[in-house]
This record gives sequence, structure tokens and C-alpha cells, in this order.
Amino acid sequence: MKILKTPKTKSEKTRIIHRLKIARGHLSKLIEMVENDDYCIDLITQSLAVRKAVKSTENIILERHLRTCFKNAMAKGSSKDQDKMIKEILDLEDYHDR
Amino acid sequence: MKILKTPKTKSEKTRIIHRLKIARGHLSKLIEMVENDDYCIDLITQSLAVRKAVKSTENIILERHLRTCFKNAMAKGSSKDQDKMIKEILDLEDYHDR
Amino acid sequence: MKILKTPKTKSEKTRIIHRLKIARGHLSKLIEMVENDDYCIDLITQSLAVRKAVKSTENIILERHLRTCFKNAMAKGSSKDQDKMIKEILDLEDYHDR
Amino acid sequence: MKILKTPKTKSEKTRIIHRLKIARGHLSKLIEMVENDDYCIDLITQSLAVRKAVKSTENIILERHLRTCFKNAMAKGSSKDQDKMIKEILDLEDYHDR
Repeated sequence: MKILKTPKTKSEKTRIIHRLKIARGHLSKLIEMVENDDYCIDLITQSLAVRKAVKSTENIILERHLRTCFKNAMAKGSSKDQDKMIKEILDLEDYHDR
Repeated sequence: MKILKTPKTKSEKTRIIHRLKIARGHLSKLIEMVENDDYCIDLITQSLAVRKAVKSTENIILERHLRTCFKNAMAKGSSKDQDKMIKEILDLEDYHDR
Repeated sequence: MKILKTPKTKSEKTRIIHRLKIARGHLSKLIEMVENDDYCIDLITQSLAVRKAVKSTENIILERHLRTCFKNAMAKGSSKDQDKMIKEILDLEDYHDR
Repeated sequence: MKILKTPKTKSEKTRIIHRLKIARGHLSKLIEMVENDDYCIDLITQSLAVRKAVKSTENIILERHLRTCFKNAMAKGSSKDQDKMIKEILDLEDYHDR
């Protein structure tokens, strides 16, 4: 099975990129704060904000994946394709735990 | 108590900034991948790598904090200062759980 | 759609129950340790072990779910059933983040 | 330095034990649910509840540790004792990430 790229509407894609750019802005700010010798707790709080922003976008991407190409592959793919799609999700879960 | 900025040796600071810039590189790559309509699972894997890189730097900053300004404040500060320093750590922990 | 209970082979079910009982043993030990006024760090280490044991069983259950009833529903269910199954997975993910 | 057991007021200790017993009740319920072949998603939701209950108690224990024996050791211990106490906290943090 050729895994199709998820068809994204323009607005979804724009929203994801917008959020990731905000996260990158937070990260650039964090680098500046380290350069300025800011207080460690403020650095960590900023770092947590970066990770939170990235995580929230990740959830949007995962949701979109499940609702589109995953759903299609599960509905129409062979049993082997289905197993492959499921394994991908489980591998992400493992990565999470590491 | 005036909370002193953590004295950083040049190499420590350089190392933290270096790592954060690598994380930012991963994040910029992720934005490109979304723009190129890459496969969702690859996007999520890249996103996990960004978060992991940021988290590892966060741990270095926390360790340095505990070993330097936290330790000093706990050893020499008033009981009130000590409570304040401890509360800061607990607040980070709460943030983690949210 | 009637959601079928996952057919479990006896050995799988036995293995899951066995692991959960081990986790419960760790938890009973933790309660004892608190009763005995054990050192806090030892209590927390024990508590982390309990959570790790529960989490590892949870992953086995999730994996089994995806490979059996989820896969079946996705392959044979209506589009509405498929959406329901996917929503369940996403809801777990949200719960995780809370 | 001899690490003193944390002096616990009776009510604190009672509260922690009470919460852990609730968590154990949830875990026993989960074992029953597996035995009854309950739906996987319900099993996972129950399992998440167990872990959440254990985690919340863990936070209470950590808070008490930082506010009592950790604070004392940091205020009165030698520099070496202080380093030991800090290392314990960092080791827990590492365990978290694993």
C-alpha cells in the first residue's frame, strides 16, 4: 500500500504552522534568557511553555492522522496494512514512555 | 533575600545554548515538514525529538539550579527564603502534571 | 454497532492479571512503608515502581485493543463506528495530558 | 549525617494511607474488570485513575519531604549532606523520564 499524504485543508495546515512558529518564538526567547543569565526557575518555566506548545500541536497532528489517513487505511487497506498503521501508533506510545 | 543569578561558567552556558539551538533547528525542520505535507507519523516523531531535546536541557538547568543558587539559599537564607525556594520547585512539579 | 468484548486467550488474560496483582503487591508494601514511617525518598521510589507496573500493563491492554476489537471495528464498522473508536483513543490521550 | 525519619503528624499520615487505600481499591476493581472481560477502553480508563490516585499521593509525600527533612538537612547539614539530598531529588526526576 502506498501511504497517502494526509490531505490537509489550507486552514488546518496554516493553523499548525502558526502554532509551531509561536513555539519557536518561545524557544528563541528562552535562548535569549539563557544568554542574559536569567533566573533558573524562569528559564525552566519558559522551557515548559515551549514543550507545552509543541505538545498541543502534536496532539492536533495525531488527531488529524487518526481521522484521515489512518481511518482510510484501516477501512480499505489489507490486514497487513492495518497492522502496519497500528504498529506506528504503538511505536509512538513507546517513544512517549522512554 | 535577593535571589542571585546563578553563576555560570562560560562552558556550561555555552553548552545549554548549543543544545537549545539544536532543538530550535529540529523545530524549524518540523515546520518545513508540515509545509511539505510530510507523513503525519514522521511529523509526530520529529515533534517528539524536539520535546526530548528541550526536556534534556531543562533537566540540566534544574540540576544546576539545585546545586548552586538553591543550595546556597537553603544553607544561608532565612526560613522564609527557604520556603520560597522550595515552593518554586513544587510549583514546577505541579506545572508538570497539568 | 455492538462493541464486542475483546476475545482474550486464557494466557493473555492470565498474564495481565498476574502483572496487576504484582502492582497491587507493590502498593500494599507502600502502604506498610508509610505506616512504618519509612524515609520519604524510599516511599516515592516505591510509588514510582507501582505506577510503572500499572503503566506497563496498560500498554499491553492498549496494544491488544488496537490489534483486536479496534482493528475489527475499523475494518468492518460504519464510518460512524470508526469515528467513535477513534474518539475513544483520542480521549485517552487527552486524559494522559491532564 | 543520620537521615531522620520525617516527623509526621498523625493526621497527615492517616490522610496519605487513606488515599493509598483508595488507589488500591481502584486497582482491585481493575483486576476484577479484567477477570470479567470488560471493554478494553474501560480497563484503560480505570488504570489511568489508579495511576492518577497514586501520583497525587506521591506529590503529597514529596512536598512533605521538601518542607521537612530536606529543608532541615539543607539548613543544618554539611555541604556533602546537602549534595546527597539534592542528588536524591535529581535521581527521582531521572526516574520520571525513564
